[in-house]
Amino acid sequence: MPTAAAAPSDVIRIAIDCMGGDHGPSVTLPAAQAFLAAHPQAELVLVGLPEALAPAAGWARCRLVYAAEVVTMDDPIEVALRKKKQSSMRVAITQLKAADGASPLAHACVSAGNTGALMAVARYLLKTLDGIDRPAIATVMPNQAGRYTTVLDLGANVDCTAEHLLQFAVMGSALVAAVDGKEDPSVGLLNIGEEMIKGSETIKRAGELLRQAAADGHMNFYGNVEGNDIFKGTTDLVVCDGFVGNVALKTAEGVATMMGAMIKEEFSRSWLTKLSALVAMPVLQRFRGRVDHRRFNGAALLGLRGLVFKSHGSADAFAFEQALNRAYDAARNRLLDRVHDRIVETLQAMPAAPADDTTVTGDGALDIPQTA
Amino acid sequence: MPTAAAAPSDVIRIAIDCMGGDHGPSVTLPAAQAFLAAHPQAELVLVGLPEALAPAAGWARCRLVYAAEVVTMDDPIEVALRKKKQSSMRVAITQLKAADGASPLAHACVSAGNTGALMAVARYLLKTLDGIDRPAIATVMPNQAGRYTTVLDLGANVDCTAEHLLQFAVMGSALVAAVDGKEDPSVGLLNIGEEMIKGSETIKRAGELLRQAAADGHMNFYGNVEGNDIFKGTTDLVVCDGFVGNVALKTAEGVATMMGAMIKEEFSRSWLTKLSALVAMPVLQRFRGRVDHRRFNGAALLGLRGLVFKSHGSADAFAFEQALNRAYDAARNRLLDRVHDRIVETLQAMPAAPADDTTVTGDGALDIPQTA
Repeated sequence: MPTAAAAPSDVIRIAIDCMGGDHGPSVTLPAAQAFLAAHPQAELVLVGLPEALAPAAGWARCRLVYAAEVVTMDDPIEVALRKKKQSSMRVAITQLKAADGASPLAHACVSAGNTGALMAVARYLLKTLDGIDRPAIATVMPNQAGRYTTVLDLGANVDCTAEHLLQFAVMGSALVAAVDGKEDPSVGLLNIGEEMIKGSETIKRAGELLRQAAADGHMNFYGNVEGNDIFKGTTDLVVCDGFVGNVALKTAEGVATMMGAMIKEEFSRSWLTKLSALVAMPVLQRFRGRVDHRRFNGAALLGLRGLVFKSHGSADAFAFEQALNRAYDAARNRLLDRVHDRIVETLQAMPAAPADDTTVTGDGALDIPQTA
Repeated sequence: MPTAAAAPSDVIRIAIDCMGGDHGPSVTLPAAQAFLAAHPQAELVLVGLPEALAPAAGWARCRLVYAAEVVTMDDPIEVALRKKKQSSMRVAITQLKAADGASPLAHACVSAGNTGALMAVARYLLKTLDGIDRPAIATVMPNQAGRYTTVLDLGANVDCTAEHLLQFAVMGSALVAAVDGKEDPSVGLLNIGEEMIKGSETIKRAGELLRQAAADGHMNFYGNVEGNDIFKGTTDLVVCDGFVGNVALKTAEGVATMMGAMIKEEFSRSWLTKLSALVAMPVLQRFRGRVDHRRFNGAALLGLRGLVFKSHGSADAFAFEQALNRAYDAARNRLLDRVHDRIVETLQAMPAAPADDTTVTGDGALDIPQTA
């Protein structure tokens, strides 16, 4: 059984690695303050170096927990895992572990630290859920339907079997159900064509497993989808291996950045175009708001015995607060229980993945989408 | 030795499958006419059903070749390959084959037909070049540096070995050198992080092969790149397997389409925003021009003993003409000889790919980027 998550009416406590990310406490503390103001039922556990946490001394609904070290954005996984045992990242994740019979100190943990390190430390401390071979990273991307599409894996697993992809679909369905309140989210398998015969042997076999799960009534499997379907909003969830997901995420980031820069360039070309930019400003700002990647900040590390969320390393206070919101919603809606229930329901009758070397292949360079 | 391509001063003859694509002769014939007007040294071989080619009767510098059948956009590869032996697609490709001692009837062939069928028929008729295990599909995508990035493979090969990726890099380098006149194009290996330790075993091994080719002075290898680097313009060429390339291409298409639709939506929201759209129109049109996917139409099928270019199926006459231009530039700049020379130079000292099953895994659903 996973660590029990809180019932909707309970107090939700989020542990924050205040030192993580490019900006550390100068971003995480203002975000924490804004989050507390917006959520009267929430409590925070702020983890960091004593001097960094000084501004938060005396804040209501906040407990300060001191750490002695910081995992930097460039630290190799090995260093985070074996050397820096008093890091704020590690101490923050430890808050999710309950002593025997007791409740955990926090229901979810958020860090903007290095993804590879975060995944490795979280996996080491929390362990994976029964039935899950490998944790995966899930995030959301905006779509044309005015909603957003949840995509996983985004870089935790570069080589996946069909069984891993099935597990991602199960965990992702639980995430969408918990955070978006959509109980039976549609699942697409990322492929290079809609037809069943498309793709590698792994993908075809994953399609078979997903169709079987759907036939058994355990999943709302749509079928194959392609890269553009993520942004069309064809399905609620898109499942792929971490290599493909990471390339898709960064390609999307690249196109959005390029298009944004081109619009800017064209509007700055002359005094006449600058004038028209002034006129078009309110419209351009609304557009920018819709594709503002900060709104979509907060990737879930799924498959662990605890709720860990990863913020983009370069997040500002607004973006970091969105990651806190996502972690809060996940904890409040009992994501951990839901993942567990779906695993029991769907995976029990299904084949297990072949023996895994359990090597953590977390991607230290991974970050959350920059869609504007 | 590959079929000899023309010297720069010679007449260049392009064979056109006039029936291919969503619109057939209503697009291909006007494009052919515009192309002839723009290239006084070019000649065309127009291939199609007799009634479809009737409007072109009597055109100067044009030879009409009649076909009895048409490969549809939905035809399975098997049908194109084994049933429709008199198709316009097949007859057009046949124009690239020279009788013993004679010159070929055409120096390049362009079709907007179904990609999987085109690749399969071209591979069957033309065969692959010595040293190349699998042909690949290469196209260009616009980048922020104001140039464009060549990417391959885009879907011809879903599972690739490191040796295949090396071959793609060699062929892609020849393409950029021939079409863009950049003799020593920089090559990036698409990965999920810049560090050498990133990625699957195949990708790491491909990195080793590429570094070795660079150390031997045969390639300008930059190192690993990520999805966003395609649109930053970090390297001239980006190499990846066909699954990843296809997902990247379609993801880019999806983001661009979504952003275009959102801009349109925001500017149509009220009479006030519509008014500001009028003011901003010239700027928005320049922006649209820069990301207009039609300008980038025309993907090269590389690794065959003949120059075959694939136009987007939905191309209009302007877009199809760009594909003709790309084929013309490739033929005029002796792309086939250049690919051959680079293979001899680079690959002779390198390990061969493991035995291949030579199954054509062409992706019938693949199409060229829709970046706007």
